[in-house]
Amino acid sequence: MKKLSTEEIHHHLDELQDWKLEGSAIKKNWQFEDFRAAMKFINEVADLANRYDHHPELFNVYNKVSLKFSTHDAGGLTERDFKMAKEVDKIQ
Amino acid sequence: MKKLSTEEIHHHLDELQDWKLEGSAIKKNWQFEDFRAAMKFINEVADLANRYDHHPELFNVYNKVSLKFSTHDAGGLTERDFKMAKEVDKIQ
Repeated sequence: MKKLSTEEIHHHLDELQDWKLEGSAIKKNWQFEDFRAAMKFINEVADLANRYDHHPELFNVYNKVSLKFSTHDAGGLTERDFKMAKEVDKIQ
Repeated sequence: MKKLSTEEIHHHLDELQDWKLEGSAIKKNWQFEDFRAAMKFINEVADLANRYDHHPELFNVYNKVSLKFSTHDAGGLTERDFKMAKEVDKIQ
């Protein structure tokens, strides 16, 4: 997987909602109604991570969840990270 | 819930395995066989958090999980945090 250029990264970010660049990763924060809703979301993210074999950094406290994607093997962001971001954003 | 004294905290920590003091929280790191095993553990922790209505800060990346407990309402560590740590350590 080819590391994306800064221009490609910003093009991808423009297509997404609320994902921010953080170092060599993309990050988004969510706030749910309660802990159960947060855990439901986390499990749906886990299903996607298994399906695409690409795993986020995940942070949770009560109703808050943060996800970060980066492609460590490529030393930066790749198409895989933005594919995952798009799939995560489809979760209802 | 009463905030524990430093002496009480160290007494509790001595009874636990691999939990460390970090600021006004207790923290432990786990490494599992793979992401699925990590997610199974996270879901069991979530069940405990729901049962005792006390929720950790949770961090996960692939097969690694970290948990932190603190009692924000008490401004430090209480018996509830150590109860949760003991319950989490019973997960197989």
